[in-house]
Amino acid sequence: MRYALKFGYHGKNFFGYARQPNLRTVEGDIIDSLKKTMIIEDEKSANFQSASRTDKGVSACGNVLAIDTDFRKDEILGALNAHLEDIWFYGISQVGNDFNPRHANQRWYRYYLLDSGFDVKKIQDAAKIFVGSHNFSNFSKMEEGKEPKRTIDSIDISKENEFIILDFRAQSFLWNMVRRIVKAISDSAEGRLSSDDILIALAGEQKVDLGIASPESLILMDVHYDFEFEIEIKNLSDLKKNLEDNLHKIRTENVFYTQMLRSIEG
Amino acid sequence: MRYALKFGYHGKNFFGYARQPNLRTVEGDIIDSLKKTMIIEDEKSANFQSASRTDKGVSACGNVLAIDTDFRKDEILGALNAHLEDIWFYGISQVGNDFNPRHANQRWYRYYLLDSGFDVKKIQDAAKIFVGSHNFSNFSKMEEGKEPKRTIDSIDISKENEFIILDFRAQSFLWNMVRRIVKAISDSAEGRLSSDDILIALAGEQKVDLGIASPESLILMDVHYDFEFEIEIKNLSDLKKNLEDNLHKIRTENVFYTQMLRSIEG
Repeated sequence: MRYALKFGYHGKNFFGYARQPNLRTVEGDIIDSLKKTMIIEDEKSANFQSASRTDKGVSACGNVLAIDTDFRKDEILGALNAHLEDIWFYGISQVGNDFNPRHANQRWYRYYLLDSGFDVKKIQDAAKIFVGSHNFSNFSKMEEGKEPKRTIDSIDISKENEFIILDFRAQSFLWNMVRRIVKAISDSAEGRLSSDDILIALAGEQKVDLGIASPESLILMDVHYDFEFEIEIKNLSDLKKNLEDNLHKIRTENVFYTQMLRSIEG
Repeated sequence: MRYALKFGYHGKNFFGYARQPNLRTVEGDIIDSLKKTMIIEDEKSANFQSASRTDKGVSACGNVLAIDTDFRKDEILGALNAHLEDIWFYGISQVGNDFNPRHANQRWYRYYLLDSGFDVKKIQDAAKIFVGSHNFSNFSKMEEGKEPKRTIDSIDISKENEFIILDFRAQSFLWNMVRRIVKAISDSAEGRLSSDDILIALAGEQKVDLGIASPESLILMDVHYDFEFEIEIKNLSDLKKNLEDNLHKIRTENVFYTQMLRSIEG
């Protein structure tokens, strides 16, 4: 049987997604666990494939991978979660034997931009330039022979506390593409870049490097296919407890740094 | 000249305050920096003394230490901060040659209790039992020969987002005392402990162990003396930037875990 599995992880804890010798990576940890649990024997025979190999520092709430296995479907997620730290598996779906998670209908990335007093209208205007089909070679670390044309379905802008949220939706993105667009959008909103500068870079006729935004604020929110994932309830309460504990620790750090700032301000 | 210095640190980054060989401690890092900057030659001749040796995991926004030095007063904090990570010096005051920071007028500790649906009235009722002068031997890890009587001036209860805040004020506290009282208060509010149980433990006539709350949620907010500290403005903008960067990182983690919980909830 072939299954698609949905999972999340926090980028801070890994040296990126793709396996690297002697470094902790998301893919490395997952494959180790798949083998330890005997869910797969090795990634080749299981036809292990991932939807998105996120950059170092980038997090995911909804990345997807696919494997072939004879393991009991209702025990896969529980077995994996029992062996993993900082990676949370929560959705599963049986798929066709030729299913490759790279071929998604749509990917959704969210960027949390620290709001240093941005004019949201200017962010929206700059974002609009990127929507639609363009040559994004200047907005990616291009791999040789890779088609630079991509179609961004939408970029939605919203505000939440001290963040401006940019939601990017497209069937596929090039390497570093979201972070390079975010950098151009924020520089444009702050007046360091004109829309003409962006248009010239988007034309792709000359090489332009407009910089890149930091990876820590980027989350792969979801990857969409023709099917829905079943959310596995059996181990969900343990997962929730684990995530809530993390959240509690972080919020305690949050109040500390807020207090510390108040203290030095006297 | 003898100076009192005010500083903060996040407990997560250290194996406690008190120096230990081969472990990163607050005191160890501070003394190393005091020596490297030539502010002091060694802690003995400088009569290095600290107000509070907080437990492993406990943070401080306003701990205090004192040293003798001939260093220029207006350069001490800047020199120290340039050499330190995760410790922030921000206040200074010249003091008498016999000043010992342990002898404070009042210490203020704050505990951030995760609000799991507490009845605040019950928290307040339990807290009241501890205010005033009591034998706290059952609410501390007693050091031999140490006087177990202490006087708690006040315990103020307030709410902030998902936390119930407990503010403890007293001239001095015993080792672990705040965390042991917090544990008894929260157990009492949740009905696992009666006020009689607490009164018996407070009488101190028999040994009772009512447990201890986790250190990560405890902050030494301030230590008060007869004098005020001068807030050093020169390096304040760098300090602020550093703290704000930390805060931004934490808030980005916060939004990730919040999103991740939303994702698994479907």
